[in-house]
Amino acid sequence: MHFTSERRNGDLIERQFVLGEIPGMLWTPARAASPVPLILLGHPGGLNRMLPRLAARAEPAAAQGFASVAIELPGAGDRPASASAADARAALQRAIAAGERPSEEVIDRLILPLVEQAVPEWRATMDALLELPEIGGPVGISGGVIAIGVRLAHVEPRIAAAVLFAGSYVPRSIIEEARRVTIPLHVLLQWDDEGNDRQLALEVFDAFGSTEKQLIANMGGHTGVPHHAGENASGFFARHLVGVR
Amino acid sequence: MHFTSERRNGDLIERQFVLGEIPGMLWTPARAASPVPLILLGHPGGLNRMLPRLAARAEPAAAQGFASVAIELPGAGDRPASASAADARAALQRAIAAGERPSEEVIDRLILPLVEQAVPEWRATMDALLELPEIGGPVGISGGVIAIGVRLAHVEPRIAAAVLFAGSYVPRSIIEEARRVTIPLHVLLQWDDEGNDRQLALEVFDAFGSTEKQLIANMGGHTGVPHHAGENASGFFARHLVGVR
Repeated sequence: MHFTSERRNGDLIERQFVLGEIPGMLWTPARAASPVPLILLGHPGGLNRMLPRLAARAEPAAAQGFASVAIELPGAGDRPASASAADARAALQRAIAAGERPSEEVIDRLILPLVEQAVPEWRATMDALLELPEIGGPVGISGGVIAIGVRLAHVEPRIAAAVLFAGSYVPRSIIEEARRVTIPLHVLLQWDDEGNDRQLALEVFDAFGSTEKQLIANMGGHTGVPHHAGENASGFFARHLVGVR
Repeated sequence: MHFTSERRNGDLIERQFVLGEIPGMLWTPARAASPVPLILLGHPGGLNRMLPRLAARAEPAAAQGFASVAIELPGAGDRPASASAADARAALQRAIAAGERPSEEVIDRLILPLVEQAVPEWRATMDALLELPEIGGPVGISGGVIAIGVRLAHVEPRIAAAVLFAGSYVPRSIIEEARRVTIPLHVLLQWDDEGNDRQLALEVFDAFGSTEKQLIANMGGHTGVPHHAGENASGFFARHLVGVR
Protein backbone atom coordinates (compact mmCIF):
# COMPACT_ATOMS: atom_id res chain seq x y z
CA MET A 1 0.00 0.00 0.00
CA HIS A 2 1.33 3.40 -1.00
CA PHE A 3 -0.16 6.67 0.15
CA THR A 4 -0.21 9.11 -2.75
CA SER A 5 -1.70 12.20 -1.12
CA GLU A 6 -2.71 13.49 2.28
CA ARG A 7 -4.83 16.46 3.26
CA ARG A 8 -6.61 17.78 6.30
CA ASN A 9 -10.38 18.24 5.86
CA GLY A 10 -11.83 19.69 9.07
CA ASP A 11 -11.42 17.02 11.74
CA LEU A 12 -10.56 14.37 9.15
CA ILE A 13 -7.25 13.36 7.60
CA GLU A 14 -7.90 12.13 4.05
CA ARG A 15 -5.24 9.95 2.44
CA GLN A 16 -5.40 8.54 -1.08
CA PHE A 17 -3.58 5.27 -1.59
CA VAL A 18 -3.02 2.51 -4.08
CA LEU A 19 -2.92 -1.14 -3.09
CA GLY A 20 -1.30 -2.82 -6.07
CA GLU A 21 -3.52 -1.52 -8.88
CA ILE A 22 -6.47 -0.67 -6.65
CA PRO A 23 -7.09 2.98 -5.75
CA GLY A 24 -8.52 3.78 -2.33
CA MET A 25 -9.13 6.51 0.21
CA LEU A 26 -8.55 6.39 3.96
CA TRP A 27 -10.19 8.81 6.39
CA THR A 28 -8.90 8.97 9.97
CA PRO A 29 -9.88 11.24 12.86
CA ALA A 30 -7.38 14.11 13.09
CA ARG A 31 -7.28 13.73 16.87
CA ALA A 32 -7.24 10.18 18.25
CA ALA A 33 -5.36 9.18 21.38
CA SER A 34 -5.25 5.42 20.74
CA PRO A 35 -5.64 3.04 17.76
CA VAL A 36 -9.15 3.30 16.34
CA PRO A 37 -11.67 0.84 14.87
CA LEU A 38 -11.98 0.70 11.08
CA ILE A 39 -15.12 0.84 8.93
CA LEU A 40 -15.11 -0.55 5.38
CA LEU A 41 -17.26 1.82 3.33
CA GLY A 42 -19.05 -0.01 0.53
CA HIS A 43 -20.37 1.73 -2.60
CA PRO A 44 -21.72 0.73 -6.02
CA GLY A 45 -18.46 1.37 -7.89
CA GLY A 46 -16.93 4.53 -9.34
CA LEU A 47 -14.83 5.68 -6.41
CA ASN A 48 -14.06 9.20 -7.65
CA ARG A 49 -17.70 9.95 -8.33
CA MET A 50 -18.65 8.55 -4.91
CA LEU A 51 -16.01 10.42 -2.90
CA PRO A 52 -18.20 13.31 -1.68
CA ARG A 53 -20.84 10.89 -0.38
CA LEU A 54 -18.21 8.59 1.12
CA ALA A 55 -16.55 11.55 2.88
CA ALA A 56 -19.98 12.50 4.26
CA ARG A 57 -20.19 9.01 5.82
CA ALA A 58 -16.58 9.08 7.04
CA GLU A 59 -17.03 12.38 8.86
CA PRO A 60 -19.58 11.29 11.51
CA ALA A 61 -17.66 7.99 11.84
CA ALA A 62 -14.51 9.98 12.63
CA ALA A 63 -16.45 12.03 15.17
CA GLN A 64 -17.24 8.69 16.86
CA GLY A 65 -13.52 7.83 16.76
CA PHE A 66 -13.55 5.46 13.77
CA ALA A 67 -11.35 5.35 10.66
CA SER A 68 -13.10 4.66 7.34
CA VAL A 69 -11.77 3.25 4.09
CA ALA A 70 -13.11 2.84 0.57
CA ILE A 71 -11.51 1.03 -2.37
CA GLU A 72 -12.54 0.90 -6.01
CA LEU A 73 -14.68 -2.11 -6.96
CA PRO A 74 -13.32 -4.62 -9.50
CA GLY A 75 -14.25 -3.50 -13.02
CA ALA A 76 -15.34 0.00 -11.93
CA GLY A 77 -13.81 3.47 -12.33
CA ASP A 78 -10.41 3.26 -14.02
CA ARG A 79 -10.00 -0.45 -13.28
CA PRO A 80 -10.14 -2.88 -16.23
CA ALA A 81 -13.78 -3.59 -17.15
CA SER A 82 -15.07 -7.15 -17.29
CA ALA A 83 -16.80 -8.09 -20.58
CA SER A 84 -18.61 -10.93 -18.84
CA ALA A 85 -19.94 -8.59 -16.12
CA ALA A 86 -21.07 -6.05 -18.73
CA ASP A 87 -22.89 -8.81 -20.58
CA ALA A 88 -24.58 -10.06 -17.38
CA ARG A 89 -25.55 -6.50 -16.37
CA ALA A 90 -27.15 -5.95 -19.79
CA ALA A 91 -29.12 -9.21 -19.41
CA LEU A 92 -30.23 -8.11 -15.91
CA GLN A 93 -31.38 -4.73 -17.17
CA ARG A 94 -33.28 -6.31 -20.06
CA ALA A 95 -35.12 -8.56 -17.60
CA ILE A 96 -35.99 -5.64 -15.31
CA ALA A 97 -37.11 -3.50 -18.26
CA ALA A 98 -39.38 -6.37 -19.40
CA GLY A 99 -40.88 -6.57 -15.91
CA GLU A 100 -39.38 -10.02 -15.40
CA ARG A 101 -37.44 -11.42 -12.51
CA PRO A 102 -33.77 -11.80 -13.54
CA SER A 103 -32.73 -15.45 -13.72
CA GLU A 104 -30.53 -17.03 -11.05
CA GLU A 105 -27.97 -17.66 -13.77
CA VAL A 106 -27.72 -13.97 -14.70
CA ILE A 107 -27.48 -12.92 -11.04
CA ASP A 108 -24.74 -15.49 -10.39
CA ARG A 109 -22.83 -14.38 -13.50
CA LEU A 110 -23.00 -10.72 -12.45
CA ILE A 111 -22.37 -11.00 -8.71
CA LEU A 112 -20.28 -14.10 -7.95
CA PRO A 113 -17.11 -13.05 -9.88
CA LEU A 114 -17.38 -9.63 -8.21
CA VAL A 115 -17.50 -11.29 -4.77
CA GLU A 116 -14.60 -13.64 -5.65
CA GLN A 117 -12.42 -10.70 -6.64
CA ALA A 118 -13.52 -7.99 -4.19
CA VAL A 119 -13.33 -10.00 -0.95
CA PRO A 120 -9.57 -10.78 -1.16
CA GLU A 121 -9.00 -7.12 -2.07
CA TRP A 122 -10.86 -5.97 1.04
CA ARG A 123 -8.90 -8.46 3.15
CA ALA A 124 -5.57 -7.20 1.73
CA THR A 125 -6.70 -3.65 2.49
CA MET A 126 -7.44 -4.68 6.09
CA ASP A 127 -4.03 -6.39 6.36
CA ALA A 128 -2.28 -3.19 5.27
CA LEU A 129 -4.34 -0.74 7.31
CA LEU A 130 -4.31 -2.71 10.55
CA GLU A 131 -0.51 -2.43 10.50
CA LEU A 132 -0.74 1.36 10.79
CA PRO A 133 -0.17 2.46 14.39
CA GLU A 134 -3.29 4.68 14.35
CA ILE A 135 -5.66 1.85 13.35
CA GLY A 136 -6.37 -1.00 15.74
CA GLY A 137 -9.68 -2.61 14.81
CA PRO A 138 -12.16 -4.14 15.24
CA VAL A 139 -13.51 -3.77 11.71
CA GLY A 140 -17.06 -3.01 10.66
CA ILE A 141 -18.71 -3.18 7.24
CA SER A 142 -20.90 -0.30 6.10
CA GLY A 143 -23.09 -0.93 3.06
CA GLY A 144 -22.00 -1.64 -0.48
CA VAL A 145 -22.85 -4.70 -2.58
CA ILE A 146 -24.58 -6.93 -0.01
CA ALA A 147 -23.17 -10.18 -1.44
CA ILE A 148 -19.63 -8.88 -0.81
CA GLY A 149 -20.65 -7.96 2.75
CA VAL A 150 -22.09 -11.42 3.38
CA ARG A 151 -18.97 -13.20 2.12
CA LEU A 152 -16.68 -10.89 4.13
CA ALA A 153 -18.76 -11.35 7.29
CA HIS A 154 -18.63 -15.11 6.72
CA VAL A 155 -14.91 -15.59 6.04
CA GLU A 156 -13.16 -12.74 7.84
CA PRO A 157 -12.92 -13.09 11.64
CA ARG A 158 -11.62 -9.53 12.11
CA ILE A 159 -15.05 -8.20 11.12
CA ALA A 160 -17.09 -7.60 14.26
CA ALA A 161 -20.31 -6.03 12.97
CA ALA A 162 -21.96 -5.04 9.70
CA VAL A 163 -24.45 -2.51 8.42
CA LEU A 164 -25.75 -4.04 5.20
CA PHE A 165 -27.91 -2.42 2.54
CA ALA A 166 -30.41 -4.81 0.94
CA GLY A 167 -30.14 -3.00 -2.35
CA SER A 168 -28.83 -5.43 -4.95
CA TYR A 169 -29.41 -8.96 -6.19
CA VAL A 170 -28.10 -11.82 -4.10
CA PRO A 171 -27.09 -15.21 -5.54
CA ARG A 172 -28.67 -18.30 -3.93
CA SER A 173 -25.25 -19.58 -2.82
CA ILE A 174 -24.64 -16.31 -0.94
CA ILE A 175 -27.98 -16.72 0.88
CA GLU A 176 -26.67 -20.10 2.03
CA GLU A 177 -23.47 -18.41 3.23
CA ALA A 178 -25.61 -15.91 5.17
CA ARG A 179 -26.78 -18.79 7.40
CA ARG A 180 -23.19 -19.11 8.68
CA VAL A 181 -22.82 -15.39 9.51
CA THR A 182 -23.09 -14.83 13.27
CA ILE A 183 -21.88 -11.24 13.88
CA PRO A 184 -24.34 -8.47 14.87
CA LEU A 185 -26.11 -7.05 11.80
CA HIS A 186 -28.05 -3.89 11.03
CA VAL A 187 -29.82 -4.40 7.67
CA LEU A 188 -31.31 -1.45 5.79
CA LEU A 189 -34.04 -2.07 3.21
CA GLN A 190 -35.66 0.52 0.98
CA TRP A 191 -39.24 -0.78 0.76
CA ASP A 192 -39.87 0.47 -2.78
CA ASP A 193 -36.39 -0.01 -4.22
CA GLU A 194 -36.86 -0.27 -7.98
CA GLY A 195 -33.63 -2.25 -8.46
CA ASN A 196 -34.30 -4.74 -5.72
CA ASP A 197 -36.55 -7.68 -4.90
CA ARG A 198 -38.21 -7.06 -1.53
CA GLN A 199 -39.18 -10.66 -0.87
CA LEU A 200 -35.65 -11.81 -1.63
CA ALA A 201 -34.25 -9.14 0.68
CA LEU A 202 -36.51 -10.38 3.50
CA GLU A 203 -35.35 -13.92 2.76
CA VAL A 204 -31.70 -12.88 3.03
CA PHE A 205 -32.41 -11.14 6.34
CA ASP A 206 -34.18 -14.26 7.62
CA ALA A 207 -31.27 -16.46 6.53
CA PHE A 208 -28.56 -14.74 8.59
CA GLY A 209 -27.45 -16.92 11.50
CA SER A 210 -26.82 -13.91 13.77
CA THR A 211 -28.78 -13.83 16.99
CA GLU A 212 -28.48 -10.04 16.98
CA LYS A 213 -29.83 -8.70 13.72
CA GLN A 214 -32.15 -5.81 13.03
CA LEU A 215 -34.00 -5.00 9.81
CA ILE A 216 -34.84 -1.35 9.20
CA ALA A 217 -37.15 -0.75 6.26
CA ASN A 218 -37.82 2.78 5.07
CA MET A 219 -40.12 4.08 2.38
CA GLY A 220 -38.81 5.18 -0.94
CA GLY A 221 -36.40 4.04 -3.61
CA HIS A 222 -32.77 3.11 -3.76
CA THR A 223 -31.31 6.50 -2.86
CA GLY A 224 -34.01 7.57 -0.39
CA VAL A 225 -32.48 6.34 2.88
CA PRO A 226 -33.54 8.96 5.46
CA HIS A 227 -30.98 10.84 7.50
CA HIS A 228 -32.18 9.36 10.81
CA ALA A 229 -31.44 5.83 9.49
CA GLY A 230 -27.79 6.85 9.21
CA GLU A 231 -27.87 8.04 12.81
CA ASN A 232 -29.24 4.69 13.94
CA ALA A 233 -26.43 2.92 12.08
CA SER A 234 -23.94 5.10 14.00
CA GLY A 235 -25.53 3.93 17.23
CA PHE A 236 -25.17 0.34 16.05
CA PHE A 237 -21.42 0.77 15.41
CA ALA A 238 -21.01 2.55 18.75
CA ARG A 239 -22.52 -0.52 20.47
CA HIS A 240 -20.43 -3.07 18.58
CA LEU A 241 -17.08 -1.54 17.61
CA VAL A 242 -16.20 0.32 20.79
CA GLY A 243 -14.57 -1.50 23.67
CA VAL A 244 -15.04 -4.97 22.14
CA ARG A 245 -11.38 -5.56 21.45
CA MET B 1 -62.45 12.08 34.66
CA HIS B 2 -61.64 12.00 38.35
CA PHE B 3 -58.15 11.85 39.73
CA THR B 4 -58.04 9.44 42.67
CA SER B 5 -54.38 9.70 43.72
CA GLU B 6 -51.27 11.70 42.97
CA ARG B 7 -47.65 11.04 43.86
CA ARG B 8 -44.25 12.28 42.88
CA ASN B 9 -41.91 9.59 41.47
CA GLY B 10 -38.54 11.19 40.71
CA ASP B 11 -39.11 13.62 37.85
CA LEU B 12 -42.59 12.22 37.16
CA ILE B 13 -45.96 13.07 38.63
CA GLU B 14 -48.13 9.92 38.63
CA ARG B 15 -51.89 10.38 38.86
CA GLN B 16 -54.42 7.56 38.97
CA PHE B 17 -57.82 8.38 37.51
CA VAL B 18 -61.14 6.89 36.55
CA LEU B 19 -62.98 7.88 33.40
CA GLY B 20 -66.48 6.60 33.96
CA GLU B 21 -65.76 2.98 34.87
CA ILE B 22 -62.33 2.87 33.25
CA PRO B 23 -59.22 3.04 35.45
CA GLY B 24 -56.17 4.84 34.11
CA MET B 25 -52.82 6.34 34.99
CA LEU B 26 -51.35 9.66 33.85
CA TRP B 27 -47.64 10.47 34.01
CA THR B 28 -46.53 14.08 33.51
CA PRO B 29 -43.08 15.65 33.73
CA ALA B 30 -42.68 17.28 37.16
CA ARG B 31 -41.09 20.30 35.52
CA ALA B 32 -42.63 21.56 32.28
CA ALA B 33 -42.81 25.22 31.31
CA SER B 34 -45.56 24.92 28.68
CA PRO B 35 -48.30 22.43 27.71
CA VAL B 36 -46.73 19.13 26.63
CA PRO B 37 -47.49 16.52 23.96
CA LEU B 38 -49.30 13.35 25.06
CA ILE B 39 -48.40 9.72 24.36
CA LEU B 40 -51.06 7.00 24.57
CA LEU B 41 -49.31 3.96 26.05
CA GLY B 42 -50.79 0.73 24.75
CA HIS B 43 -50.46 -2.60 26.57
CA PRO B 44 -51.98 -6.09 26.35
CA GLY B 45 -54.49 -5.56 29.18
CA GLY B 46 -54.17 -5.89 32.95
CA LEU B 47 -53.23 -2.31 33.85
CA ASN B 48 -52.12 -2.95 37.44
CA ARG B 49 -49.80 -5.78 36.42
CA MET B 50 -48.39 -3.60 33.57
CA LEU B 51 -47.81 -0.47 35.68
CA PRO B 52 -44.08 -0.98 36.38
CA ARG B 53 -43.36 -1.50 32.66
CA LEU B 54 -45.61 1.41 31.66
CA ALA B 55 -43.89 3.69 34.18
CA ALA B 56 -40.54 2.62 32.69
CA ARG B 57 -41.82 3.84 29.28
CA ALA B 58 -43.34 7.04 30.74
CA GLU B 59 -40.09 8.05 32.42
CA PRO B 60 -37.91 8.62 29.31
CA ALA B 61 -40.95 10.18 27.59
CA ALA B 62 -41.22 12.67 30.47
CA ALA B 63 -37.49 13.39 30.15
CA GLN B 64 -38.27 14.36 26.54
CA GLY B 65 -41.08 16.61 27.79
CA PHE B 66 -44.04 14.32 27.01
CA ALA B 67 -46.97 13.25 29.19
CA SER B 68 -48.02 9.58 28.96
CA VAL B 69 -51.32 7.91 29.72
CA ALA B 70 -52.55 4.32 29.98
CA ILE B 71 -56.10 3.06 30.47
CA GLU B 72 -57.39 -0.43 31.16
CA LEU B 73 -58.45 -2.39 28.06
CA PRO B 74 -62.11 -3.44 27.70
CA GLY B 75 -62.62 -6.82 29.37
CA ALA B 76 -59.24 -6.78 31.17
CA GLY B 77 -58.17 -6.26 34.79
CA ASP B 78 -61.20 -5.50 36.99
CA ARG B 79 -63.39 -4.54 34.03
CA PRO B 80 -66.30 -6.86 33.12
CA ALA B 81 -65.03 -9.79 31.05
CA SER B 82 -66.54 -10.56 27.65
CA ALA B 83 -67.72 -14.17 27.24
CA SER B 84 -67.53 -13.82 23.46
CA ALA B 85 -63.90 -12.59 23.61
CA ALA B 86 -62.95 -15.44 25.97
CA ASP B 87 -64.51 -17.90 23.54
CA ALA B 88 -62.67 -16.38 20.56
CA ARG B 89 -59.37 -16.32 22.49
CA ALA B 90 -59.77 -20.01 23.32
CA ALA B 91 -60.43 -20.80 19.65
CA LEU B 92 -57.33 -18.77 18.65
CA GLN B 93 -55.16 -20.60 21.16
CA ARG B 94 -56.47 -23.99 20.01
CA ALA B 95 -55.53 -23.10 16.42
CA ILE B 96 -52.03 -21.94 17.43
CA ALA B 97 -51.48 -25.04 19.60
CA ALA B 98 -52.50 -27.20 16.62
CA GLY B 99 -49.97 -25.38 14.44
CA GLU B 100 -52.77 -23.93 12.32
CA ARG B 101 -53.36 -20.41 11.16
CA PRO B 102 -56.33 -18.95 13.11
CA SER B 103 -59.32 -18.32 10.87
CA GLU B 104 -60.31 -14.81 9.79
CA GLU B 105 -63.60 -15.35 11.59
CA VAL B 106 -61.91 -16.06 14.92
CA ILE B 107 -59.56 -13.08 14.55
CA ASP B 108 -62.49 -10.79 13.70
CA ARG B 109 -64.51 -12.09 16.65
CA LEU B 110 -61.59 -11.50 19.07
CA ILE B 111 -60.28 -8.17 17.81
CA LEU B 112 -63.10 -6.16 16.19
CA PRO B 113 -65.29 -5.78 19.32
CA LEU B 114 -62.17 -4.75 21.25
CA VAL B 115 -61.41 -2.05 18.65
CA GLU B 116 -65.05 -0.87 18.62
CA GLN B 117 -65.02 -0.41 22.39
CA ALA B 118 -61.44 0.73 23.04
CA VAL B 119 -61.18 3.46 20.40
CA PRO B 120 -64.03 5.66 21.78
CA GLU B 121 -62.55 5.15 25.25
CA TRP B 122 -59.16 6.42 24.09
CA ARG B 123 -60.83 9.38 22.37
CA ALA B 124 -62.76 10.26 25.56
CA THR B 125 -59.47 10.02 27.47
CA MET B 126 -57.87 12.44 25.00
CA ASP B 127 -60.86 14.82 25.31
CA ALA B 128 -60.45 14.92 29.08
CA LEU B 129 -56.65 15.16 29.22
CA LEU B 130 -56.29 17.80 26.50
CA GLU B 131 -58.41 20.10 28.68
CA LEU B 132 -55.78 20.04 31.42
CA PRO B 133 -53.62 23.17 31.25
CA GLU B 134 -50.39 21.15 31.42
CA ILE B 135 -51.22 19.00 28.35
CA GLY B 136 -51.39 20.54 24.92
CA GLY B 137 -50.88 17.82 22.33
CA PRO B 138 -50.13 16.69 19.68
CA VAL B 139 -50.86 13.08 20.57
CA GLY B 140 -48.78 10.02 19.74
CA ILE B 141 -49.60 6.33 20.00
CA SER B 142 -47.06 3.98 21.55
CA GLY B 143 -47.68 0.27 21.06
CA GLY B 144 -50.55 -1.84 22.34
CA VAL B 145 -52.99 -3.88 20.28
CA ILE B 146 -52.06 -2.85 16.73
CA ALA B 147 -55.65 -2.98 15.41
CA ILE B 148 -56.63 -0.35 18.00
CA GLY B 149 -53.68 1.79 16.92
CA VAL B 150 -54.65 1.52 13.25
CA ARG B 151 -58.28 2.52 13.91
CA LEU B 152 -57.19 5.43 16.15
CA ALA B 153 -54.65 6.64 13.59
CA HIS B 154 -57.35 6.42 10.93
CA VAL B 155 -60.23 8.20 12.68
CA GLU B 156 -58.58 10.58 15.16
CA PRO B 157 -57.07 13.74 13.62
CA ARG B 158 -55.38 14.76 16.89
CA ILE B 159 -52.98 11.83 16.55
CA ALA B 160 -49.81 13.01 14.82
CA ALA B 161 -47.55 9.95 14.88
CA ALA B 162 -47.59 6.33 16.00
CA VAL B 163 -45.15 3.70 17.17
CA LEU B 164 -46.95 0.43 16.48
CA PHE B 165 -45.99 -3.06 17.61
CA ALA B 166 -46.78 -5.77 15.06
CA GLY B 167 -47.46 -8.25 17.81
CA SER B 168 -51.07 -9.40 17.53
CA TYR B 169 -53.50 -10.60 14.91
CA VAL B 170 -55.05 -8.05 12.58
CA PRO B 171 -58.49 -8.43 10.97
CA ARG B 172 -58.66 -8.00 7.16
CA SER B 173 -60.94 -4.97 7.51
CA ILE B 174 -58.33 -3.27 9.69
CA ILE B 175 -55.66 -3.87 7.02
CA GLU B 176 -57.98 -2.03 4.62
CA GLU B 177 -58.25 0.83 7.14
CA ALA B 178 -54.44 0.94 7.29
CA ARG B 179 -54.43 2.07 3.64
CA ARG B 180 -56.11 5.31 4.76
CA VAL B 181 -53.61 6.05 7.55
CA THR B 182 -51.22 8.81 6.51
CA ILE B 183 -49.40 9.91 9.69
CA PRO B 184 -45.71 9.06 10.23
CA LEU B 185 -45.30 5.51 11.55
CA HIS B 186 -42.56 3.58 13.33
CA VAL B 187 -43.49 -0.12 13.24
CA LEU B 188 -41.70 -2.63 15.47
CA LEU B 189 -41.75 -6.31 14.53
CA GLN B 190 -40.29 -9.19 16.56
CA TRP B 191 -39.07 -11.51 13.80
CA ASP B 192 -39.69 -14.73 15.76
CA ASP B 193 -42.81 -13.69 17.67
CA GLU B 194 -44.57 -16.93 18.58
CA GLY B 195 -47.98 -15.23 18.83
CA ASN B 196 -47.74 -13.39 15.54
CA ASP B 197 -47.82 -14.02 11.82
CA ARG B 198 -44.74 -12.44 10.25
CA GLN B 199 -46.05 -12.38 6.70
CA LEU B 200 -49.28 -10.75 7.86
CA ALA B 201 -47.29 -8.18 9.82
CA LEU B 202 -45.30 -7.31 6.67
CA GLU B 203 -48.58 -7.05 4.76
CA VAL B 204 -49.97 -4.62 7.35
CA PHE B 205 -46.80 -2.53 7.12
CA ASP B 206 -47.03 -2.50 3.34
CA ALA B 207 -50.70 -1.46 3.49
CA PHE B 208 -50.22 1.76 5.46
CA GLY B 209 -50.78 4.81 3.28
CA SER B 210 -48.15 6.86 5.12
CA THR B 211 -45.30 8.17 3.02
CA GLU B 212 -43.12 8.22 6.13
CA LYS B 213 -43.13 4.78 7.68
CA GLN B 214 -40.28 2.69 9.01
CA LEU B 215 -40.28 -1.01 9.87
CA ILE B 216 -37.81 -2.15 12.52
CA ALA B 217 -37.54 -5.91 12.90
CA ASN B 218 -35.54 -7.38 15.75
CA MET B 219 -34.71 -10.96 16.58
CA GLY B 220 -36.48 -12.80 19.32
CA GLY B 221 -39.96 -13.37 20.62
CA HIS B 222 -42.81 -11.20 21.78
CA THR B 223 -41.11 -9.70 24.82
CA GLY B 224 -37.59 -9.48 23.40
CA VAL B 225 -37.64 -5.92 22.03
CA PRO B 226 -34.07 -4.66 22.61
CA HIS B 227 -33.39 -1.55 24.63
CA HIS B 228 -31.94 0.36 21.66
CA ALA B 229 -35.24 -0.10 19.76
CA GLY B 230 -36.92 1.91 22.50
CA GLU B 231 -34.33 4.64 22.09
CA ASN B 232 -35.03 4.81 18.36
CA ALA B 233 -38.75 5.14 19.10
CA SER B 234 -37.92 8.11 21.35
CA GLY B 235 -36.07 9.71 18.46
CA PHE B 236 -39.12 9.15 16.26
CA PHE B 237 -41.42 10.93 18.73
CA ALA B 238 -38.89 13.74 19.13
CA ARG B 239 -39.04 14.28 15.34
CA HIS B 240 -42.84 14.17 15.09
CA LEU B 241 -44.36 15.42 18.35
CA VAL B 242 -42.13 18.40 19.10
CA GLY B 243 -42.78 21.75 17.45
CA VAL B 244 -45.44 20.43 15.06
CA ARG B 245 -48.36 22.15 16.70
